[in-house]
Amino acid sequence: MVQQAAPEVLICEVGPRDGLQNEPETLPTAVKRELVERLVRTGLRRIEITSFVSPRWIPQLADGEALAASLARPDGVVYSALVPNARGYERFSGVGGLGVAAVFASASETHNRKNVNRSIAAQLEEIRLVSERAHADGVRVRAYVSTVCGCPYEGEVALRAVVELAERLLDLGADEISLGDTIGIGHPRQVRELVAAVAAEIPLDRVALHMHDTYGRALANVQAGYEAGVRAFDASLGGLGGCPYAPGASGNVATEDVLDLFERAGVRTGVELDALVDTTQWLQDEILRRPLPGRVFRARLGARRGAAECAPGGAGDAE
Amino acid sequence: MVQQAAPEVLICEVGPRDGLQNEPETLPTAVKRELVERLVRTGLRRIEITSFVSPRWIPQLADGEALAASLARPDGVVYSALVPNARGYERFSGVGGLGVAAVFASASETHNRKNVNRSIAAQLEEIRLVSERAHADGVRVRAYVSTVCGCPYEGEVALRAVVELAERLLDLGADEISLGDTIGIGHPRQVRELVAAVAAEIPLDRVALHMHDTYGRALANVQAGYEAGVRAFDASLGGLGGCPYAPGASGNVATEDVLDLFERAGVRTGVELDALVDTTQWLQDEILRRPLPGRVFRARLGARRGAAECAPGGAGDAE
Repeated sequence: MVQQAAPEVLICEVGPRDGLQNEPETLPTAVKRELVERLVRTGLRRIEITSFVSPRWIPQLADGEALAASLARPDGVVYSALVPNARGYERFSGVGGLGVAAVFASASETHNRKNVNRSIAAQLEEIRLVSERAHADGVRVRAYVSTVCGCPYEGEVALRAVVELAERLLDLGADEISLGDTIGIGHPRQVRELVAAVAAEIPLDRVALHMHDTYGRALANVQAGYEAGVRAFDASLGGLGGCPYAPGASGNVATEDVLDLFERAGVRTGVELDALVDTTQWLQDEILRRPLPGRVFRARLGARRGAAECAPGGAGDAE
Repeated sequence: MVQQAAPEVLICEVGPRDGLQNEPETLPTAVKRELVERLVRTGLRRIEITSFVSPRWIPQLADGEALAASLARPDGVVYSALVPNARGYERFSGVGGLGVAAVFASASETHNRKNVNRSIAAQLEEIRLVSERAHADGVRVRAYVSTVCGCPYEGEVALRAVVELAERLLDLGADEISLGDTIGIGHPRQVRELVAAVAAEIPLDRVALHMHDTYGRALANVQAGYEAGVRAFDASLGGLGGCPYAPGASGNVATEDVLDLFERAGVRTGVELDALVDTTQWLQDEILRRPLPGRVFRARLGARRGAAECAPGGAGDAE
């Protein structure tokens, strides 16, 4: 096989974790395994496969150990899993072969407390413990920062709060930061300013953007982040992962939509978009049996069926 | 009432025309009338109410004369209608009180022929006739340019073809140009280059962007167009107007999504977003009784119901 030029952006596929944890169904472990294997075959190289948050809160992902144990470890593919605290890390490390432990903290104190019932300071203490153990095991640490563009409780979140938290997380041992617009409220100029502020303190090659499409702005925000220098973006196949509290409201940005945005602009992603479309179609039509919100996979499937394009006048002469 | 500062962007609402012509239902004239009246009450000042393309092709809008005759003409509101040729203009002028006749031509020869069964040159001759009559009647002319970012038949469309056609349309009497990404394939850098090329020949205050969301990029493209200097944008409430040939594929960008993009960035639109959300909810729930694709109206309705926000860890401590 001809060696292809290296990808210019890194797409971190979070569907099996951030997607499934926000969907009502609990898929069998074997189905999750097939999903991850299909995703690997598309060329995706970073896949978040599960969460070690307590099954009391995330029953959909209670089978994290079993899933992780069932997966092959293909060369060049890095699996990550969400790790909420030191106890969660015990579960993570019990599995073995997972390359990235993903911790999280909110830039908003209220949101952090509502989300995990502790202060940011206490959260950082857990993260310190997890990082120490992870590094001792040769595992990398990703730190999600939530509410970077706004908080459902506090409203505006100061840029300074985001930057300081990101710096603190790196000090505690995080190898990479994923900046999350948890409620999808960010807009492009805001994302540009956020990235610039972060870039002043942290090398951008350690920063990913995790945009939500609640208000339809995820791709516009990805574009702004890319123009500001970010080269890693989280996404979920088909846009899997609408918020369970607002049925029909979209959450995660669809991986195909992000891929096509880059491909059209000539930016190499390293992912086979058509293969991913196949995977999303399988997930939608054979497993979930309900529509996923992504735009590109639906348009691609329509094009395969030979759907014609619409035009203002309709066919033929008007009289 | 305190006088508000003037809007900074003009939103051209095309739902009653470009939306309804691409939906399967034919709504009664009384319902269309109520739709337009509700839209007027939101503060929208440019509304495309119907099309005088032959009912043979667009049966959904066969009642153009009756609808137009039934509408009041509120101060400050401009109604437009699609006019395919000189005969269509006879119907338009028979109504009276419509401020803008909207003609159209494709930047792609193949698309023009497939769409209206004549060459661009022949189309321009019709447009010349329409413009002469319209101006004699004190009516303004808007010219839609289709396939500005790509053609379903020819693929790439040269920037030069778009610019030259836009110039020609202005020479023939068009007062404004709406650049349409008919198949939604455009991406932000491309839109930026397109607008720059057009701006070199045409004052941007005569240019609007008509973006489609087929690949989820409409808002990213609107943002790019705004940053490049465009200040008028076409949109359709709730994203009404999916392509009839590709069920579920999205077409028109949702007006609420465009409004919220601007409002969040502090750009005045002159439109009451919540009132428009109410209108879209009415249209979706009481008239069409099926989901519309827009993001913002759905998120706003969810927020009104007090839906909580999602977060990575789930509530509570993980063990």
